[in-house]
Amino acid sequence: MKEFLFDELVEKIRKTEGLTKKNTERLLTKLIQNENTFEIFLADLREVKEKITVCEVCFYYKIENVCPICSDESRNKKVICVVSTALDAKSIENVGKYKGVYAILNGEINITKNITPDKLKIEKLFARLEFDSELILALNATFEGEVTANFIAQEARKLKIKTTRIAKGIPMGGSLDYMDESTLENAILNRKNYEG
Amino acid sequence: MKEFLFDELVEKIRKTEGLTKKNTERLLTKLIQNENTFEIFLADLREVKEKITVCEVCFYYKIENVCPICSDESRNKKVICVVSTALDAKSIENVGKYKGVYAILNGEINITKNITPDKLKIEKLFARLEFDSELILALNATFEGEVTANFIAQEARKLKIKTTRIAKGIPMGGSLDYMDESTLENAILNRKNYEG
Repeated sequence: MKEFLFDELVEKIRKTEGLTKKNTERLLTKLIQNENTFEIFLADLREVKEKITVCEVCFYYKIENVCPICSDESRNKKVICVVSTALDAKSIENVGKYKGVYAILNGEINITKNITPDKLKIEKLFARLEFDSELILALNATFEGEVTANFIAQEARKLKIKTTRIAKGIPMGGSLDYMDESTLENAILNRKNYEG
Repeated sequence: MKEFLFDELVEKIRKTEGLTKKNTERLLTKLIQNENTFEIFLADLREVKEKITVCEVCFYYKIENVCPICSDESRNKKVICVVSTALDAKSIENVGKYKGVYAILNGEINITKNITPDKLKIEKLFARLEFDSELILALNATFEGEVTANFIAQEARKLKIKTTRIAKGIPMGGSLDYMDESTLENAILNRKNYEG
């Protein structure tokens, strides 16, 4: 039946974008109902594409070709906070207390999904390290996050890089970008040496 | 600070589309991270725009210029189910038991938001009615839904049109498009004459 085309498109967009089915249905319904809304949405997306790119050092958002983190001279470039996504870094930025820089991995190691370490920005991270760099592993407290943290900690140990893992306040199974700010702040303040 | 451009764009898109802040942040982050994903998303949206429009009779989705409801000859055109959005009609379709047609209002009466009856597709609905038509008011069990149902029921009474309101199973304050199928099915089976 032809009506299923709507569901097919919902499913296709949902898979590409990681939105929920309900979100996607609502989004498309709004867009279909009003030609004007559709044009505004496309224009907004075009603005996003033009103005926001990805920093080739830390992989955070670059706004009009400037990374607000890497270009900030008051930040300590030797302290590198390792996170899974740019949104995770943004959550930490919202706390407003962290004064180091970031390394965004663009994902987590997941063997069943064939996401091996070489698919992430781990090599790029290690290329940035100096003998006195410090890594703060702010990865999700999920299985994949732990695997990724362990992998990086082991590599860092070979190079004698000081490595800590944020600890207090992340409930097991939780996703970093849903945490409240005080939980995140505590987790960073109470980080401890990696014994993994 | 330039970084706020991301938040500005999130806020702009969120307002246009009715997505949550978190959804929009995740959507944009995915799109920014990967040029390819961005292009696929735009192509999918273009496909939506090309293939899915709005039926000018019932305001349901029209797939490649055919409304799957209005074009279905096995449906009883005299029984018209009045809903607020196309997604509400889709929820009822998913139950698979309803054999009448729809009238989608594209919203609900909301005086504080200046949504008066003339802003909705109520006139279009009454233009379709014949002396033996029957209206099933399947509007949300919210304040705005009740106001809209009352308005339509009063107008229909003047024309001596048989009008029922879906009843059993919609919890007060609930939104129609989040209901499970059996709740929706019961609500339609147990509809009762409008005494409002």
